[in-house]
Amino acid sequence: MTAPATGPQDAPRLAVCPGSYDPVTLGHVDVIARAAVLFPAVVAAVVHNPGKAGLFPTDERAELLRQVLAEDPRTAGVRVDVVAGGLLVDYCREVGAVAVVKGLRGGTDFAYELPMALMNRHLTGLETVFLPGAPRYEHISSSLVKEVARHGGDVSDLVPPLVLGPMARRLAG
Amino acid sequence: MTAPATGPQDAPRLAVCPGSYDPVTLGHVDVIARAAVLFPAVVAAVVHNPGKAGLFPTDERAELLRQVLAEDPRTAGVRVDVVAGGLLVDYCREVGAVAVVKGLRGGTDFAYELPMALMNRHLTGLETVFLPGAPRYEHISSSLVKEVARHGGDVSDLVPPLVLGPMARRLAG
Amino acid sequence: MTAPATGPQDAPRLAVCPGSYDPVTLGHVDVIARAAVLFPAVVAAVVHNPGKAGLFPTDERAELLRQVLAEDPRTAGVRVDVVAGGLLVDYCREVGAVAVVKGLRGGTDFAYELPMALMNRHLTGLETVFLPGAPRYEHISSSLVKEVARHGGDVSDLVPPLVLGPMARRLAG
Amino acid sequence: MTAPATGPQDAPRLAVCPGSYDPVTLGHVDVIARAAVLFPAVVAAVVHNPGKAGLFPTDERAELLRQVLAEDPRTAGVRVDVVAGGLLVDYCREVGAVAVVKGLRGGTDFAYELPMALMNRHLTGLETVFLPGAPRYEHISSSLVKEVARHGGDVSDLVPPLVLGPMARRLAG
Amino acid sequence: MTAPATGPQDAPRLAVCPGSYDPVTLGHVDVIARAAVLFPAVVAAVVHNPGKAGLFPTDERAELLRQVLAEDPRTAGVRVDVVAGGLLVDYCREVGAVAVVKGLRGGTDFAYELPMALMNRHLTGLETVFLPGAPRYEHISSSLVKEVARHGGDVSDLVPPLVLGPMARRLAG
Amino acid sequence: MTAPATGPQDAPRLAVCPGSYDPVTLGHVDVIARAAVLFPAVVAAVVHNPGKAGLFPTDERAELLRQVLAEDPRTAGVRVDVVAGGLLVDYCREVGAVAVVKGLRGGTDFAYELPMALMNRHLTGLETVFLPGAPRYEHISSSLVKEVARHGGDVSDLVPPLVLGPMARRLAG
Repeated sequence: MTAPATGPQDAPRLAVCPGSYDPVTLGHVDVIARAAVLFPAVVAAVVHNPGKAGLFPTDERAELLRQVLAEDPRTAGVRVDVVAGGLLVDYCREVGAVAVVKGLRGGTDFAYELPMALMNRHLTGLETVFLPGAPRYEHISSSLVKEVARHGGDVSDLVPPLVLGPMARRLAG
Repeated sequence: MTAPATGPQDAPRLAVCPGSYDPVTLGHVDVIARAAVLFPAVVAAVVHNPGKAGLFPTDERAELLRQVLAEDPRTAGVRVDVVAGGLLVDYCREVGAVAVVKGLRGGTDFAYELPMALMNRHLTGLETVFLPGAPRYEHISSSLVKEVARHGGDVSDLVPPLVLGPMARRLAG
Repeated sequence: MTAPATGPQDAPRLAVCPGSYDPVTLGHVDVIARAAVLFPAVVAAVVHNPGKAGLFPTDERAELLRQVLAEDPRTAGVRVDVVAGGLLVDYCREVGAVAVVKGLRGGTDFAYELPMALMNRHLTGLETVFLPGAPRYEHISSSLVKEVARHGGDVSDLVPPLVLGPMARRLAG
Repeated sequence: MTAPATGPQDAPRLAVCPGSYDPVTLGHVDVIARAAVLFPAVVAAVVHNPGKAGLFPTDERAELLRQVLAEDPRTAGVRVDVVAGGLLVDYCREVGAVAVVKGLRGGTDFAYELPMALMNRHLTGLETVFLPGAPRYEHISSSLVKEVARHGGDVSDLVPPLVLGPMARRLAG
Repeated sequence: MTAPATGPQDAPRLAVCPGSYDPVTLGHVDVIARAAVLFPAVVAAVVHNPGKAGLFPTDERAELLRQVLAEDPRTAGVRVDVVAGGLLVDYCREVGAVAVVKGLRGGTDFAYELPMALMNRHLTGLETVFLPGAPRYEHISSSLVKEVARHGGDVSDLVPPLVLGPMARRLAG
Repeated sequence: MTAPATGPQDAPRLAVCPGSYDPVTLGHVDVIARAAVLFPAVVAAVVHNPGKAGLFPTDERAELLRQVLAEDPRTAGVRVDVVAGGLLVDYCREVGAVAVVKGLRGGTDFAYELPMALMNRHLTGLETVFLPGAPRYEHISSSLVKEVARHGGDVSDLVPPLVLGPMARRLAG
């Protein structure tokens, strides 16, 4: 087999992994690490939602995510940004992203994400790429993690070690 | 915003778009063209299924696909290959692919593709990336196209012009 | 409240209920009866599939369906036709149908029917109208009925009484 | 082929297209226009939900919808009503509707709508008829439209032109 | 056929049917009655959700459920408990339950319940067993029942007779 | 908390795990082992399908399954049977089973199994109990295992060790 022809676009493709990351879970890290295998440049974008109070303020989510990704050799090259306002598509155009990457945890996730993916494509042509979630993280979402922790359950298998302390303090405070 | 850090892997990422392409449809071309925006190198792989007789022999499917992709500036750099035997993951390892790209036409497609994607990841770590199909091609599949053409329906909006003649001859023969 | 304005089209709307009806079940009769409440004219169309051998030949399916519908006051005005060849959309145009009516038994049915509905709309503008199946008939499909009967199970709650004798004779023969 | 027998019910069938229409989108107009092809009389019913503050008050939604439908020859004969309180099934009985018409945008929509459709049928026998949404409007919902507009995105391809000014004023105020 | 060998665990297996039961419906009673056929000991557990105001206070839900189950010979042996705080898995470990039993009303219910079931299994090994809902109760959920009753609809076919009076008083008060 | 009241039925409940087991996979063993925790008596029933040629004859499937289950302490008490003809519900009545147990691998599995579960309940009242598949076996089905093995892939992580030799011989022969 000969080497495949090179495609029409030669700059390093940048992908964005958006999320509320409140807080970052092992499932998030897995998706970001896999995105970093697929794309030469990856940004994890913490999307601020003014209408929804989270456990952590947006900046603290970003800071935790930054520390977690820096520690892991698979994600050490990933940048963390905050999307403070405006549309995700506008942010993506600004940073020159070719795609948004989303992990999928079952068919319902896909049905929920599809209209947003089509809307983003309609607005600026931005692509959304779906990665099937790793089965061993299928049960992990930020909201379920917080519910377990809030009721005194053990979440040390669900989030990176760096997150455990800050989450315990937030829930106690 | 500063330029994002570059990821850990700097060779041009190669993606494979597998399918039976019996025959190539406008939906296939759309997915391949979008893959070529996301990845610097793309191979469209015609997978031979010995247990299933198609309308076209595998080589003719590949030849039609090659002509169709060569004509379209968005896909002119895409190579066409035939996977004649063996597992798709073995082919992908051989050509150095980082991912398989699949278009999705609704939640059922995803449920059908998911076990294969997980199996491929289990076998060699190969990723599968899902692209939501363009809504205007949602109704197009090779099998539905053949059924329409077989009953005398007009398929000129469903397949590339180059496919119309060969398909008519096959169905007549 | 005043009387609603009349729509732009005043001829009696004709709807087609297509199916293989091999054999007609109580679920089929329910959908056809409900279609007859919604539309002033209804045709139940037995679609002949040359590639698939059924339990009954197409003409016998149509004859059984005719007898069953004639007996039921809710469906006595419904005509039965055979679509012997060609596309369903061509048949519908010929008889002047505004819509195809399909019963749905769960989300999978919808996912399966959607591409065909979109294709039919693409080809001639023919609409497909989905009616949620009555829950008490949710478990009834022609294929499951035949499987039960083939293994000696009691199907008298699943098909109209008129169907029991012919089905027993077919399965014995 | 002879003319099909006429069904048991000869008064013009009235269908109701309910929704919050906050505001009316191009997807809504498409479903209403298609309902008007299927049924000789159609009412678009703006359902008031006392527990949920919308962008527009109910009466203004109805007025916008009335202007939009009046302008379009496909929907000029459609009446607009407000269902201010009580159950939708009671409203439908009052106006003599044979069915509620709902557009479907994917399998999740169907799963969400099914229990309500079954409940309505249980309460008064009212049928619900599902129309598959046009793929080109698949990404359009009132809530996504409002989110895009709120973040400064362009929604002129998503709602009728008449809606653009009032929506901008509401979001600014 | 000889008698099947007995499994490794001989104590009477206890199953828990959790829910908010606000209020108990005929669908709930059906699932609990079926669980009592499958398991020798069953507890219906009213889960208190501090973040969500219900129609009835938790204790009154439990009391109504207790009366309803006591009256029905199929469920007379079922105990009713309140899970006032903490995780469901901790409650289940405390009472020695082998499984949680959940009724399913369609594919969306399953997709919603799956992450919780996997999380529970991850935390303590607790199994979740899904029973397909009886089709004739498919349209019944506590929230839809309350919505119908609130708008003056008749719910006497949807909840046990004992619930009608208390619900009417609550909605009036 | 006091001990829960004992249910109305005190004989050891028997559950049946039906399947084609062609061949038994690690996913099958997981579901059977979990059924043995839930029910005091479990039969794994190899269902013979006369219309479908398998890789192994039915008796050899049963023999392999028997050896595999006997080796595993979690399943050592599980009996293996062949259902050679007739309906599964008739077999279950004969052995006195209270339920059929099925593993679920995603929403599509559920949609496929639901009509059969409802039909079985309609015919004899037999319950079907669904267990969510363990995520780490989500990608494993007999048919996918055979496809991988047929193309020379490594299946030693997918089936019990005892199955590897016989499968290799069958595929070579």
